[in-house]
Amino acid sequence: MWADLAGIGRAPGDAGGYRRFVWSDADLTLREWFVGEANARGLGVHEDRAGNLWAWWGDPTAGDAVVTGSHLDSVPSGGAFDGPLGVVSGLLAVDRLLETGTMPDRPIAVVAFSDEEGGRYGIACGGSRVLTGLLPAERALALRDDDGVTQAEALRASGRAEAAFGADPEVLRTVGTFVELHVEQGRGLVDLDAPVGVASAIRGHGRWRFDLAGRPDHAGTTRLEDRDDPMLTQARLVLAARDAAARHDAVATVGKVLVEPNAVNAVPARVQAWLDARADDDEVVRAVVAEVAGAIGVEAVEESWTPRVDFAAGLRDRLVERLGGVPVLPTGAGHDAGILASVGVPSAMVFVRNPTGVSHAPDEHAETADCLAGVDALATVLEELAWE
Amino acid sequence: MWADLAGIGRAPGDAGGYRRFVWSDADLTLREWFVGEANARGLGVHEDRAGNLWAWWGDPTAGDAVVTGSHLDSVPSGGAFDGPLGVVSGLLAVDRLLETGTMPDRPIAVVAFSDEEGGRYGIACGGSRVLTGLLPAERALALRDDDGVTQAEALRASGRAEAAFGADPEVLRTVGTFVELHVEQGRGLVDLDAPVGVASAIRGHGRWRFDLAGRPDHAGTTRLEDRDDPMLTQARLVLAARDAAARHDAVATVGKVLVEPNAVNAVPARVQAWLDARADDDEVVRAVVAEVAGAIGVEAVEESWTPRVDFAAGLRDRLVERLGGVPVLPTGAGHDAGILASVGVPSAMVFVRNPTGVSHAPDEHAETADCLAGVDALATVLEELAWE
Repeated sequence: MWADLAGIGRAPGDAGGYRRFVWSDADLTLREWFVGEANARGLGVHEDRAGNLWAWWGDPTAGDAVVTGSHLDSVPSGGAFDGPLGVVSGLLAVDRLLETGTMPDRPIAVVAFSDEEGGRYGIACGGSRVLTGLLPAERALALRDDDGVTQAEALRASGRAEAAFGADPEVLRTVGTFVELHVEQGRGLVDLDAPVGVASAIRGHGRWRFDLAGRPDHAGTTRLEDRDDPMLTQARLVLAARDAAARHDAVATVGKVLVEPNAVNAVPARVQAWLDARADDDEVVRAVVAEVAGAIGVEAVEESWTPRVDFAAGLRDRLVERLGGVPVLPTGAGHDAGILASVGVPSAMVFVRNPTGVSHAPDEHAETADCLAGVDALATVLEELAWE
Repeated sequence: MWADLAGIGRAPGDAGGYRRFVWSDADLTLREWFVGEANARGLGVHEDRAGNLWAWWGDPTAGDAVVTGSHLDSVPSGGAFDGPLGVVSGLLAVDRLLETGTMPDRPIAVVAFSDEEGGRYGIACGGSRVLTGLLPAERALALRDDDGVTQAEALRASGRAEAAFGADPEVLRTVGTFVELHVEQGRGLVDLDAPVGVASAIRGHGRWRFDLAGRPDHAGTTRLEDRDDPMLTQARLVLAARDAAARHDAVATVGKVLVEPNAVNAVPARVQAWLDARADDDEVVRAVVAEVAGAIGVEAVEESWTPRVDFAAGLRDRLVERLGGVPVLPTGAGHDAGILASVGVPSAMVFVRNPTGVSHAPDEHAETADCLAGVDALATVLEELAWE
């Protein structure tokens, strides 16, 4: 099953890895793959109004379902595991349970969330945010990718009806419990010498855009004192962000920059820079962003914000106990499980060890033995939850 | 004639202006336009081995020709005047001389140099550098644009033979004198209250690329102390360049930056940044680049370098006298006239007043009256040089 995915959405260029942006050809191919795998197991697939795919074992309308899954999209030049591991492990865990020959007491679903990374439109967990209504459909449809294509246009191009796109409370209401399996994005489990673990919390995190305006000019003929060069502001922004994050207990990153016209011999007309900031304490994130904005005198436009999410303690403890006392650890990465938890769905996460800790890059990895341990753990958890 | 050009190669997006990259559809359309205009005047057009177009009045093989012209390509989001004004003025000046009904004693040519801005492949004055052999064909053919397309591929796509591309000493040898008319790229003539002027020198200038390597990582889960973030180096580079230029009497600009993968939630794997540096004194340019490279500990890869060029004093003085004592002023911009001068072709430049001084941007402008004064001046100069 893993081999089927290996060739889909390879990123161009030297950096390698995967580029699986929502509604791209790669994404549509991955959706077809998911439907095919689900159908091969006798599971019917439903696409909700937010573009997420749900493969059902049992009655989709019964409610109180036990749901597992993750996402299939990637960042540009992403790794193979972030997202797909949770979807593949969900299907394999269902295989184990199907082999028991008994029907679960609660319906089980494997979900493939849409647009989790926000690689195309800049808003992470797009599929679960639209599903839950945290991201209004109108705003989601108007988002533009770097080529100027709106999500509404991309939806139409993929044969979907723009008018039907939006929150789907009917589907959301059927979810009783959500458990997301994910490759760990740090070296916590390596240090603890454990193949799998359970999440305690997701740190508060968000994305802010800075529109740095300047005056375009000739790089050779305009005196330094006559310039209004937004690249200088961008440079101060990058350094101010690192400085503020280091002083607080936070991380801050400028990972994306767009320069216009981006010509060697032209003082830029405009630079856009995005700040990603995260911390255990939500107020610390706010302080970092405010300090950066203050340092450069430019307003920060909030593109997304997710407060700290503590996963339900009762569910978490039940999983830890059932899995024989696996470690509990927090994460600095956002996940669809965090979005569902934030709207009151009892949610949990299972992490699989990542030997290098590298994430969002081609070197992201998990050993096969650890992946299989993840499937075992997930099957155990689903059995614990869906059979009474 | 100007109106015919207005619609060609409009840049996409908010920034506006023109995007006329070499071998693009816009460039090929401009070439067709040039051939059409030349033929309409009875001038035969020859494309040299470097892709430059020569419209001949008189025997192309006679030698000692008086040549005028400029270029048709633009930077991304460039203005309407930088380049085309010199070509259009050349054709209009020829019109004036054709009306006299006498044949010139020396052949006259209007040239449209190829790829002067280097907007696509990063090397300015590409057409004149290849023509003169300053840029070896092998290197020029291997250059890649931002989409990974080599110049060899672009040449083939435009129906040209890659094997024929290269230096063209036979054509170069026919040029006796070159006079380039160009919109001024500063406010020197505004301050002097003069519609036209003549160039004294081109400051030493070049382009350097910095390849800033890092380690791609997740922006939310990688501790600051574990990161190797090339965006921080890019920020220090931008500030070091401004600082070094301000301390010396120079200008330095980082106008182009490419980030991989350029994702909001990923520490970049790699950033490439280009430095444009210019000064009256070549050694000062070298010092600025060395200081910047030293400040960030990364080698500067020289993509182009043009030493200071002083235009031939005798030719310059003759033009100034013939034009009634117009002002003489230097420029910080590179030009094909500088390339030809550097290989020993007696060359000169006529500047036309630019009310705002803005260049390489949509606001670049010249008043119609000043453009007509430029045509007058150019016709006078050609008559002075080509009739004995």
